[in-house]
Amino acid sequence: MPRKTSKGVSKRSQPRGRRPVYFFGDGRADGRADQRALLGGKGANLAEMVRIGVPVPPGFTITTEVCKAVSAAKGEFPAGLDAAVEKNLAKVERLTDRRFGSTKRPLLLSVRSGARASMPGMMDTVLNLGLNRATLEGLAEESNSPRFAYDCYRRLLAMFGDVVLGLGPEDGGELSPFEQILGDMKTARGVALDTELDEGDLAKLCKSYEDLIARRSGRPFPQDPVEQLWMAVGAVFRSWDGARAISYRKMQGIPHDWGTAANVQAMVFGNLGDDCATGVLFTRDPRTGEKGLYGEFLVNAQGEDVVAGIRTPQPITLAASRRHAESHGLTEAGRRSDALSLEEAMPRCYRELRAIARRLEKHYGDMQDIEFTIERGRLLILQTRTGKRTVAAAVKIAVDLVKEKVIDREAAVLRVQPPDLLQMLHPQIDRSTPLKAIAKGLPASPGAVSGEVVFDAPTAVANAEAGQKTILVRVETSPEDIDGIHSSQGILTARGGMTSHAAVVARGMGKCCVVGCGDLEIDYERQQMKLGGRKISRGEVVTLDGSTGEIFLGRVPTTRRELGKDFGTFMRWADGFRRLGVRANAETPHDAAVARHFGAEGIGLCRTEHMFFEGDRIDIVREMILAPDQDGRDRALAKLLPIQKGDFLAILRSMAGLPVTIRLLDPPLHEFLPNTDKEIKAVSVGMGVSARHIRQLVEAMREANPMLGHRGCRLGISFPEIYAMQTRAVVEAAIELRREGVRVAPEIMIPLVSHEKELEILRNVVEKAATDAAKRYGRKYSIPVGTMIELPCAALTADEIAQHADFFSLGTNDLTQTALGLSRDDAARFLFPYVTRGIYQHDPFVSIDRKRVGELVRTAVDRGRSVKPELSIGLCGEHGGDPDSIHFCNEVGLDYVSCSPFRVPIARLAAAHAALREDDRKTRKRKAR
Amino acid sequence: MPRKTSKGVSKRSQPRGRRPVYFFGDGRADGRADQRALLGGKGANLAEMVRIGVPVPPGFTITTEVCKAVSAAKGEFPAGLDAAVEKNLAKVERLTDRRFGSTKRPLLLSVRSGARASMPGMMDTVLNLGLNRATLEGLAEESNSPRFAYDCYRRLLAMFGDVVLGLGPEDGGELSPFEQILGDMKTARGVALDTELDEGDLAKLCKSYEDLIARRSGRPFPQDPVEQLWMAVGAVFRSWDGARAISYRKMQGIPHDWGTAANVQAMVFGNLGDDCATGVLFTRDPRTGEKGLYGEFLVNAQGEDVVAGIRTPQPITLAASRRHAESHGLTEAGRRSDALSLEEAMPRCYRELRAIARRLEKHYGDMQDIEFTIERGRLLILQTRTGKRTVAAAVKIAVDLVKEKVIDREAAVLRVQPPDLLQMLHPQIDRSTPLKAIAKGLPASPGAVSGEVVFDAPTAVANAEAGQKTILVRVETSPEDIDGIHSSQGILTARGGMTSHAAVVARGMGKCCVVGCGDLEIDYERQQMKLGGRKISRGEVVTLDGSTGEIFLGRVPTTRRELGKDFGTFMRWADGFRRLGVRANAETPHDAAVARHFGAEGIGLCRTEHMFFEGDRIDIVREMILAPDQDGRDRALAKLLPIQKGDFLAILRSMAGLPVTIRLLDPPLHEFLPNTDKEIKAVSVGMGVSARHIRQLVEAMREANPMLGHRGCRLGISFPEIYAMQTRAVVEAAIELRREGVRVAPEIMIPLVSHEKELEILRNVVEKAATDAAKRYGRKYSIPVGTMIELPCAALTADEIAQHADFFSLGTNDLTQTALGLSRDDAARFLFPYVTRGIYQHDPFVSIDRKRVGELVRTAVDRGRSVKPELSIGLCGEHGGDPDSIHFCNEVGLDYVSCSPFRVPIARLAAAHAALREDDRKTRKRKAR
Repeated sequence: MPRKTSKGVSKRSQPRGRRPVYFFGDGRADGRADQRALLGGKGANLAEMVRIGVPVPPGFTITTEVCKAVSAAKGEFPAGLDAAVEKNLAKVERLTDRRFGSTKRPLLLSVRSGARASMPGMMDTVLNLGLNRATLEGLAEESNSPRFAYDCYRRLLAMFGDVVLGLGPEDGGELSPFEQILGDMKTARGVALDTELDEGDLAKLCKSYEDLIARRSGRPFPQDPVEQLWMAVGAVFRSWDGARAISYRKMQGIPHDWGTAANVQAMVFGNLGDDCATGVLFTRDPRTGEKGLYGEFLVNAQGEDVVAGIRTPQPITLAASRRHAESHGLTEAGRRSDALSLEEAMPRCYRELRAIARRLEKHYGDMQDIEFTIERGRLLILQTRTGKRTVAAAVKIAVDLVKEKVIDREAAVLRVQPPDLLQMLHPQIDRSTPLKAIAKGLPASPGAVSGEVVFDAPTAVANAEAGQKTILVRVETSPEDIDGIHSSQGILTARGGMTSHAAVVARGMGKCCVVGCGDLEIDYERQQMKLGGRKISRGEVVTLDGSTGEIFLGRVPTTRRELGKDFGTFMRWADGFRRLGVRANAETPHDAAVARHFGAEGIGLCRTEHMFFEGDRIDIVREMILAPDQDGRDRALAKLLPIQKGDFLAILRSMAGLPVTIRLLDPPLHEFLPNTDKEIKAVSVGMGVSARHIRQLVEAMREANPMLGHRGCRLGISFPEIYAMQTRAVVEAAIELRREGVRVAPEIMIPLVSHEKELEILRNVVEKAATDAAKRYGRKYSIPVGTMIELPCAALTADEIAQHADFFSLGTNDLTQTALGLSRDDAARFLFPYVTRGIYQHDPFVSIDRKRVGELVRTAVDRGRSVKPELSIGLCGEHGGDPDSIHFCNEVGLDYVSCSPFRVPIARLAAAHAALREDDRKTRKRKAR
Repeated sequence: MPRKTSKGVSKRSQPRGRRPVYFFGDGRADGRADQRALLGGKGANLAEMVRIGVPVPPGFTITTEVCKAVSAAKGEFPAGLDAAVEKNLAKVERLTDRRFGSTKRPLLLSVRSGARASMPGMMDTVLNLGLNRATLEGLAEESNSPRFAYDCYRRLLAMFGDVVLGLGPEDGGELSPFEQILGDMKTARGVALDTELDEGDLAKLCKSYEDLIARRSGRPFPQDPVEQLWMAVGAVFRSWDGARAISYRKMQGIPHDWGTAANVQAMVFGNLGDDCATGVLFTRDPRTGEKGLYGEFLVNAQGEDVVAGIRTPQPITLAASRRHAESHGLTEAGRRSDALSLEEAMPRCYRELRAIARRLEKHYGDMQDIEFTIERGRLLILQTRTGKRTVAAAVKIAVDLVKEKVIDREAAVLRVQPPDLLQMLHPQIDRSTPLKAIAKGLPASPGAVSGEVVFDAPTAVANAEAGQKTILVRVETSPEDIDGIHSSQGILTARGGMTSHAAVVARGMGKCCVVGCGDLEIDYERQQMKLGGRKISRGEVVTLDGSTGEIFLGRVPTTRRELGKDFGTFMRWADGFRRLGVRANAETPHDAAVARHFGAEGIGLCRTEHMFFEGDRIDIVREMILAPDQDGRDRALAKLLPIQKGDFLAILRSMAGLPVTIRLLDPPLHEFLPNTDKEIKAVSVGMGVSARHIRQLVEAMREANPMLGHRGCRLGISFPEIYAMQTRAVVEAAIELRREGVRVAPEIMIPLVSHEKELEILRNVVEKAATDAAKRYGRKYSIPVGTMIELPCAALTADEIAQHADFFSLGTNDLTQTALGLSRDDAARFLFPYVTRGIYQHDPFVSIDRKRVGELVRTAVDRGRSVKPELSIGLCGEHGGDPDSIHFCNEVGLDYVSCSPFRVPIARLAAAHAALREDDRKTRKRKAR
């Protein structure tokens, strides 16, 4: 089956011998949709519409090649261009039965720029070209409205003066001089709206504008319509080289040599009488994706009137009109008066519009956003483009279009951008009414939640137990806060970046989280914070938007969508294309259940230390750490064993049938020790050890750089009994579940390996502990043992390390920290200017740094597989949920990624996109041969 | 000129058709010095001595091949071996005019193991083989001393029982059963020394030994001399496969298939009368290298008597005897009675010995350590080997041997191991009297110093001003302590590894330093420490040995040698061979002067932040940091400018004519802030800022992992004005000095670059500041700008970075930290077992990890030079002073290393060694073609 592009348009090769001007109108067009490079997006699209029979005001496109020639010739138009323009203008005149510059039925033209890519910063539009003092009269006569004619003329003068002549504000003002004059006149006349100005006012306005132009530009406004046209076209081309356009291109990486096209098109008017109208519509409901025209129109109006909001627009369809009436409690008469539909008001035009909408949707293979004008009963389409929509709508439309055989599954899957799925998975702030945030931080984990402010974890826990909703506010969070985070609706921190402790933990739990809010000052003593200039005390309610980083005072309404059947269908299709597996990072049965629900194919990272903080077990952990010798440690470990085993029983059961990669203890032991005097005292009393002793120990264990300190497998080398206990807990849980007939597949992962011998030694520790544990059940049990590759040295010696590993898991969080020498907890403070100044394109903790960290990943994969071709390799950093990074993972041949449970659908979709793009690349390569 | 190996022996190819037994004696030997593989070290050396005409007791070597055959045949001797042994034994009998097993003039034999490499853990020696009840009589008669004969026999029995029969301690005792019996007898007889036992005692002892052997081994001591011999040879071969030997080989990486040879040699006796003697000598003075025999002997004695210390040995030469008499105030009669020299006592033997000593020295091309025996007026050499010596002696001997044309300069330079030079550069603990250390830490920086203990830097400074010598004791040091370190004689810390702050700073200053003394507990409040079970208060004196890590109570005498003319000659020769440049890390004129004195060719790393701590300037630095905006920062920077300029004027002047690489500010700013409440209060008062504000700022600037935080060029990105000020100070200093005619060559180095754009941006900042500064003098000035490569990502993108760099300097301290994920400040706590368990062969902060960090270094060099082939690349980490790392630097083609001033001579010599070894390798490669 031949592939369709996302626009559903099949491509042909470019024609030879390019002309400078491409005509379109009345079912014939010189150009086509795939000539964006030559005609710009707008020109190509106008041509395509005409070509498929859509009624479009006729016109012509002056190509990007001409733009480049003009630029090269320092503003001079190439020879032959005027003849070509003249010829095409004549065609427009023929088709419209009007003459450009004629005092009878004058033809008015618009000129619009249009580059290959949409590009703000260029001159956009000049309307009503062709008007002058003489043709003005003709237009007044034809429209039977001198006011209409003056209104058109004053708009031309203002636009021409502004964008063609570049007349900026005067005397250090901010308003354009034309707006200034208009404002002054309205003040003088005591009116608020332009529409309240009468014919005489507008005539005076035109005079003032003409005077201004003559004075500022040194010559009168050109009365020659042809001169107007050439000046406008010249301005379009010049605007390509304008400062704003250049800086925009630099930012977006758009080549400077593309150039822009200029589109010259006949003006049409929806405000010439009651047989005229103007409107916009979507071919499907952009909120839900429901099939059916969705939009609004105004009789005897022009586009600007819809925006101005003076008149209430009417619905397009009768059904919509009825729904409106129902929801507003209107009678049928009221409905017909307030909300008469186009379907009723202009049934012929409506039918034509409906047919055109269907045709365009089918032609472009996607939901369209269409602008139309009805001029004296004649429907004209001014623009069509792919319609913006919510993600839920996007999913439904994609699924429906496949069912309607408009697109194939592959195109459907590519229709939804993976990060957009987050919208569907978390509640959102209801933006239907305007909202003012009091401050903004980094959007660390999406969702929208409200709750009472608390400043410490224990209060958050107590609130949760009392059924209260809480926002935990901290300078930054530490593992000690884990219960508080769990008990809160949302987390707000003053410090930390997108991958700070708070951000990572919150994302892992699917909790809403805003971090690095520089504006936030906390006074723990007074239980107060200063935010956006306000003092907010404990117990006051705030709302966080984790998708934007905004913080609102009080409770703000939110909305949440159900994942429907279409979502399931869509994700199933996506799964059909992807090659990468998707696992989740989870350490509680609840997280595991969420992950499974979202389609995770296993747990790629189960952090056992998180279990150490829960409930009373932290006391036993501290007892172990404070033990003076191995005997003491062994006693404490014996108490921890049944608890850890309980954890593993629960998590392995909830992931029955799927692999669960369990990482042995990773963080420095001092993270488990008490910090404040109060905490130290509590531990001291509880354990019967002097506070002084504990304080000394805490002091002695303090590390200058804990990230590079006594952690990971270094703990296993120092205290093999800890790893042995953890292994025993895993293996006992696995054996007991297997006895029950539960299919379990735990794997043991050793963190922070820097040298193959570490893994060799610890693999022996694990294997011995596993064998011993199994013996107690009279069984044999062999458990896969793998390692994190999260240090540059491990990547470089992956071949040595692979000899002792059954699998690798790339810990790209720590690999990024060490490769870039960048602490993720500290980076927020100085990384921002790095991203804005373009030193880094993205936050390297959010999206993998392909060149640097990526080279190490490739090295690890290549060297690891050089000795074990079948080595299973996953990635379990935060990057596992980032689409760009997932593309990279697909590219380097990883087996799976593992991410936060809430990011699993995103990862699945991103993996599908990656696989499809790769296929596409391969196909292109094949073709190129 | 043909090269000589270090032993001065030219090599020939091995002979074909190897026999199992190699004879040596009376000027003829089957083997040669280069047959160590076949004959073992001892056998080859005995053969070589015989071959060059040295009188050696005759004997023969059973080859390592036989050992391997015996091992393969499970202990069975190969066919034909007994015939070969018999034939060779007959030769020995002929030469000695004795018969093995004869009751008249019995031949006694020794059997010794001897592998290719010296190998403790194998059976060593059995003496007096051939004695039995019958030959005992013959020996008694011949020696005219039954006591002598019994003494020989009991030694045979004990050695045979111990090493051949393997009879270990009985009943859980610790002593060998033979020692046990001997001890019991001495107790019973009420004597302390073996020599006090008479003939009857020894006869009884022999009987007891024979009984013990019969009882424990189940059969009587073999009376057949031939059986004794074969059993001893078998035991030698078996010992190769003993548990201790195997584990030693594993540890040392010696192949298990080398095998050992067995050396069978005629016994000689120096204790048969007054025409007998035994002694040892060095061919030159091992303490000074002075030419002339240096040693001692005893008349009518055997080797053990010298060790036992019962009789005072006499000097070899008349000159030594006279020196002895002089220093002890002896009369000539006293001298002749107490210290008669061999030169006088046995003039013929002396002359022969002197000639042999010369021959051996010349033959082996080095100073020899010789053991000899005179048996009835006949001189016999038992062993010769390269003599151990002090470094000063090594240097003098090497230089003298070149002058004597015994060796060439190349061989001379290779004679001294670079790290040994430290001995010459620092004072040493005088070990002439035994000393007991109270505790031991890591030997971080060599030297030996005594001083009063103080626990904080200000006291150290005050003491220094009062002229007192101080040892600064801290848990660990921070940049705040810099003045205290400078003011102290030595530093002792409880925490930190070989590259902790204290260690690095101390080495940089050439200060004695012991770190990571786990035993040390400090109570700052009470101004006390606990060390080795003692309480030591402020003001008590301790002595540190920075070469061993030992700490002594009180003042311990030290010695210091002057660097003589020979040292200068030697180093000049070394410089002639090396390719690598050697610079120093220094930031004060004093350090720079030391560096120049030791031969540094520039400053490779001048850390500007060290200058920020000195004197009052820390206040200005804090003012800058605490400034709320850039204006405030600029004001503070304006005050710092003249001070920094002063620093640079001094250092550039003292390094006139040589390059000085100045690194712009590197450490996190919070390192400069006050820490304790007291310090905060002082700053608060001094600056008129509230203590609360300062505390908040300190808190806000605190970093989780400062090593990976807001430091290095990230400071330059955040506060370009700091780098601009520093550049201006450098350039103004340079211009002013040039005006005076001083030749200066400063270079600016940007630290911690992770991305080429950082360097691009900061290079612009530096160049602009330099241009502006020069303009003020009406000049142009262009300064080379380079960067540290100290992050894995920088190594990986060295090609991009090189485009903006005039030079690279490899910061392998930080590169090691990030590549291995290992904080050098924290590693001491867990790295020790890593080195002892062989996970790391060396502390990677001391010697570069070639496989991991080394790959990144190679990558940086290759990629950097791929775009700039002439790019200058140095290394300025601690590794720059480590010989192994210097070899690596030479290998990868660096231009220079930069190290602590006191390590400069070591680096120069190591660089020479590296170049010579490389030449050697190339020569070998060329020959192999």
